[in-house]
Amino acid sequence: MPPPPTAALSSSSSLCLFPFSSYSSPKKTQLGFCPSFPFTRLTNVTPTRRLMTCSAVSIEKETLISHRPHSFLRETDGLDDGSVRSRFQRIIMEVQDSVCGALEAVDGAGKFKEDAWTRPGGGGGISRVLQDGDVFEKAGVNISVVYGVMPPEAYRVAKANVTDQKPGPVPFFAAGISSVLHPKNPFAPTLHFNYRYFETNAPKDAPGAPRQWWFGGGTDLTPSYIFEEDVKHFHSHRDERRGLGGIFFDDLNDYDQEMLLSFVTECANSVVPAYVPIVEKRKNTPFTESHKAWQQLRRGRYIEFNLVYDRGTTFGLKTGGRIESILVSLPLTARWEYDHKPEEGSEEWKLLDACMNPKEWI
Amino acid sequence: MPPPPTAALSSSSSLCLFPFSSYSSPKKTQLGFCPSFPFTRLTNVTPTRRLMTCSAVSIEKETLISHRPHSFLRETDGLDDGSVRSRFQRIIMEVQDSVCGALEAVDGAGKFKEDAWTRPGGGGGISRVLQDGDVFEKAGVNISVVYGVMPPEAYRVAKANVTDQKPGPVPFFAAGISSVLHPKNPFAPTLHFNYRYFETNAPKDAPGAPRQWWFGGGTDLTPSYIFEEDVKHFHSHRDERRGLGGIFFDDLNDYDQEMLLSFVTECANSVVPAYVPIVEKRKNTPFTESHKAWQQLRRGRYIEFNLVYDRGTTFGLKTGGRIESILVSLPLTARWEYDHKPEEGSEEWKLLDACMNPKEWI
Repeated sequence: MPPPPTAALSSSSSLCLFPFSSYSSPKKTQLGFCPSFPFTRLTNVTPTRRLMTCSAVSIEKETLISHRPHSFLRETDGLDDGSVRSRFQRIIMEVQDSVCGALEAVDGAGKFKEDAWTRPGGGGGISRVLQDGDVFEKAGVNISVVYGVMPPEAYRVAKANVTDQKPGPVPFFAAGISSVLHPKNPFAPTLHFNYRYFETNAPKDAPGAPRQWWFGGGTDLTPSYIFEEDVKHFHSHRDERRGLGGIFFDDLNDYDQEMLLSFVTECANSVVPAYVPIVEKRKNTPFTESHKAWQQLRRGRYIEFNLVYDRGTTFGLKTGGRIESILVSLPLTARWEYDHKPEEGSEEWKLLDACMNPKEWI
Repeated sequence: MPPPPTAALSSSSSLCLFPFSSYSSPKKTQLGFCPSFPFTRLTNVTPTRRLMTCSAVSIEKETLISHRPHSFLRETDGLDDGSVRSRFQRIIMEVQDSVCGALEAVDGAGKFKEDAWTRPGGGGGISRVLQDGDVFEKAGVNISVVYGVMPPEAYRVAKANVTDQKPGPVPFFAAGISSVLHPKNPFAPTLHFNYRYFETNAPKDAPGAPRQWWFGGGTDLTPSYIFEEDVKHFHSHRDERRGLGGIFFDDLNDYDQEMLLSFVTECANSVVPAYVPIVEKRKNTPFTESHKAWQQLRRGRYIEFNLVYDRGTTFGLKTGGRIESILVSLPLTARWEYDHKPEEGSEEWKLLDACMNPKEWI
């Protein structure tokens, strides 16, 4: 079987940055069937929510803490020591502050609620959620730092370009920021961004193998209606050429690490100037119930994309990630109608068309 | 890595009955990075919806047809010839009629809309959807018949107990009925059921291997509020013992095939008497906005379960199944709040508790 699709997955809208693949043992329902029908030997199963648990190779269970720490790094990693781990952690903490500050300023009423957690062996995260504000229906901005061990399969998923087929379990460090912003006004677009840094240790059964590192991330705009000037603004901000989407990259390690760290920092710092002016312009645009209904359908599509195809979300949920932080990416409300088709030529149709047939925006 | 969990997946709420695993080749975004920062060589990706397409070993693209045929079987299979294929197809068509009739009668206003489709090499399906009725927000009842070829991996997923490790691609026949019913009233529970029959041909590289067949299916109740008498009614109808859930079985082939066909038929015919009296009793129960809000949150959880964990849904979506038919299982509307926790001891809390801690209902 070919590997799972990575383009779909790297165009991620997840708030879980770190795909690990490790499933619990399956619970199997076997029917001990009785020939004389009152079915007394039927074995029942109660569907439960968290059927998949964290295996030994996955990440530890998190503990909520009352105050955010200065750092989630292990002490042995040092603090503010100039390592890329430490510097990247500092960068994502600063970006989380600046993005949340800018969003609260735009919203005027909503405030971010913060939850912080750590894990016994190091690592942790900070989830910030602004829910039901004046401008944003739901806005989540998360950072996290993870120390873990990936099974080889997960390593191949996490690093799309991997060529070593049997590296054995791979200890790793990962840190990232991830965010999805859902405004209330149907003319103000949804935004997703995430930026992440991975390092792996040499596998135990291949001590001579080099330690790997790579950056990944992206920012993309998901409007319910197209305002060409908004899309142009978003894209021209960083000189991209195509797509309603934005930029995405993964496995980025083929250039000087300092240069790439600067690049990723620039990308993360560009979120506010690329997005906030659009929201400012559209947050008070008058709209009808029918505009709102279309936005709700598009949100349904966003959820489909996020829960079915998004690598970060699905692996996060299946391997013991913090569920509430992962699902912050979902909008507060959404709608699914059977076989809904907008009228050809309508504004709604134009958006669908642009999603299916990429065009040059600038 | 252990195989994917099957209990989670066989407690399926999907309208796609047939899990096939075949992914398209991944599209990979590689960043051709330019050392002098205006990032002119960034390769952009536009996120699109249907990133995963049907590979050669998967099922063919469907064609909508204006009238439902008498049978979806290949002519070479014969019609009404007494084969289990033919008889099972007749059974699920009859159950679809009887369930839809009973639901329209309960609803009083909503009518089912029907879409039928076929596939060039045989097989097809009938989707029926009642949307925004007086009693049901969304009710989908689908049948389908599939002729296909499973890659060995999919064979192992479809048949949880498989022991032959390398059977090669496996031609198969499958037929089933699947349904999810979402009432409007928060006190009337959601119901899911599906019943399916699989046959495989002997693999080409193992001509002596026996052709396999098995039945699978289940029915389960998903209330937002617990009325013990309703749950007891539902469970006592078929003498099951435990769980808010219902019954589930898979790989059912360890008894006489005629007997099992009768069993599955009985199960399918029990849906109406097990469920309709509950809806009749609860469809006009007065409720507050807060009851409705809880139902919306539970629907969000249903969607999470369905899109993330449900084997039928995810494989159906990833292998070219008819998307609109698969997603009929989703409610019309739903809601996700960050870290929502019902007050301990409340009715909402009792439901959550029952979902997490299975109890004896009768």
